[in-house]
Amino acid sequence: MKEEQLDKKIASFAPLAAGGISKGVKVFAPATVANLVCGFDVLGMALHRPQDLMSVRLRDEPGIVIQHTDGYQLPVEPEKNVAGAALLAMLEEVKEPPGFDITIDKRIKPGSGLGSSAASSAGVVVAANHLLGNIFSNEDLVRFAMNGEKVASGVKHADNIAPAIYGGITLIRSIFPLDIVQLSAPPLYVTVVHPQIEVRTSDARQILRKEVKLKDAIRQWGNIAGLVAGFMKNDYSLIGRSLEDVIIEPVRSMLIPGFDEVKKNSKEAGALGGGISGSGPSIFMLSREESTAQQVEYVMTEVYVKLGIDFKTYVTTISYDGVKVLEDNE
Amino acid sequence: MKEEQLDKKIASFAPLAAGGISKGVKVFAPATVANLVCGFDVLGMALHRPQDLMSVRLRDEPGIVIQHTDGYQLPVEPEKNVAGAALLAMLEEVKEPPGFDITIDKRIKPGSGLGSSAASSAGVVVAANHLLGNIFSNEDLVRFAMNGEKVASGVKHADNIAPAIYGGITLIRSIFPLDIVQLSAPPLYVTVVHPQIEVRTSDARQILRKEVKLKDAIRQWGNIAGLVAGFMKNDYSLIGRSLEDVIIEPVRSMLIPGFDEVKKNSKEAGALGGGISGSGPSIFMLSREESTAQQVEYVMTEVYVKLGIDFKTYVTTISYDGVKVLEDNE
Repeated sequence: MKEEQLDKKIASFAPLAAGGISKGVKVFAPATVANLVCGFDVLGMALHRPQDLMSVRLRDEPGIVIQHTDGYQLPVEPEKNVAGAALLAMLEEVKEPPGFDITIDKRIKPGSGLGSSAASSAGVVVAANHLLGNIFSNEDLVRFAMNGEKVASGVKHADNIAPAIYGGITLIRSIFPLDIVQLSAPPLYVTVVHPQIEVRTSDARQILRKEVKLKDAIRQWGNIAGLVAGFMKNDYSLIGRSLEDVIIEPVRSMLIPGFDEVKKNSKEAGALGGGISGSGPSIFMLSREESTAQQVEYVMTEVYVKLGIDFKTYVTTISYDGVKVLEDNE
Repeated sequence: MKEEQLDKKIASFAPLAAGGISKGVKVFAPATVANLVCGFDVLGMALHRPQDLMSVRLRDEPGIVIQHTDGYQLPVEPEKNVAGAALLAMLEEVKEPPGFDITIDKRIKPGSGLGSSAASSAGVVVAANHLLGNIFSNEDLVRFAMNGEKVASGVKHADNIAPAIYGGITLIRSIFPLDIVQLSAPPLYVTVVHPQIEVRTSDARQILRKEVKLKDAIRQWGNIAGLVAGFMKNDYSLIGRSLEDVIIEPVRSMLIPGFDEVKKNSKEAGALGGGISGSGPSIFMLSREESTAQQVEYVMTEVYVKLGIDFKTYVTTISYDGVKVLEDNE
């Protein structure tokens, strides 16, 4: 970022803070489904439910103070906290940055595969940008929030961050340089089941092979091309046929008890298709009708009741808002 | 194909032949660009130029008689001829098939990387289907024509056949089972240079590694997803950014003298991007404006004049017709 640009940014921020027009906001930060079966590391989708609730307020003195009102025992030191790391990256590009008080009510369980860390990172940068007078673009915000992902999983990925900030379905065509593409899609219902077992993103990454067969890669890029075309043509059947992953799912699904049965039964119940959400253990299924999505929730429930594994389900839709900002001037 | 369906087909064919409504057709069969840089084995595009001219006529007795009026010395025994093999596959699904006289005036040079064999296979099956009363679907025709590709290169691929039959830009999401998706695109000009050197499809296939790095595959499927989105959103800049191939091009381009210079100079001249057409040696470039496409032709010409390699160039557009049928009742 050039010095000249920074001057302009701090200039537009100063009167806002001084005039007390907006000293605090509440934001809702959405859960996200990364990968979307055949789009490993490049596709992602924002959901209406679940979502985190965050409060971000300007402080009178510098520094970042983080408080969690949930019970997840997440670190509160800014460098070690996902939201803190994202905000620190942002403030590096602001001259004489103000301080912030952040309160996080996390409702997306960490380690669920539903973009819990991305919600914190995306939520805080959208909120802080709002308080600074929206001086940064959405693409800048993704870049900052990726530092939160690095704290969470060791890798600067954007497939949860981008849909959380832009809303809807996003493609990360390239990460260096960052190239984010928004994709349209027909109305879709999303059923999610989160079996309460632990799969760490870093472990889920380590079990992947570094090399793949060319013929499998060809099948995979045929499928992602089909999925993108299906979304943009509103072709439900094509979406369903394209939701196939011959590279990641066969390996990662072994970490998720009940996966094969959930998938088979959901499709029999009418789901278009689906698979592992992010690196798991949550599983998502897309349906054309709400009644089908509810039926899918029922068959998911059956599987985990039978297995005796605790679980949580959601029937929801795609959120086209991304992080939602509400003024908070109390 | 079920017996019942065959009966229906032969029934709809018989009166046509007996009544002499149409005993012969001429068809124009288009050149095609397979792969489209990042869509190896799955994407293809039909061109207005060059195109083969074929005449297909019903014979009074059974059998397939093939004649070439071009000077390419291609085999004329039906089993060894690309068009013959495609037609034989089709006639296996027709009860009491009639005979055909086929005359081929090949204008797409064999081994150019412009889908010369696909033009013959696609042309003959579209023509014969017309004479039989259009009893087969386009998808059936692709399936038959793939037998011609097998004769030409040993592999039943459809990335040239599908655009030749459907027209426009096609995605082969899956080859077994066959799943063809038509993609829309904004107006595009295509510049092609065919350096007159020989690259056999089978050789071009053999030099590819059987395994690829996962990180390269991810980059490739980000690009194909971007290219499909770019076509469907009419986003020229996204099309240009997505025309990147990190897997096939680095290997195959070594077989094509002048490749790197053609690509670099074409992009400097304003081309959106491009790469190897099929397995080469032809190179294609996409441009938004006709004047740019002509400028690209000029820089391509410069490169091959300097290298002292014979070449041929075309400035053309996407053909949305595919194989074009003209009645021929002389």
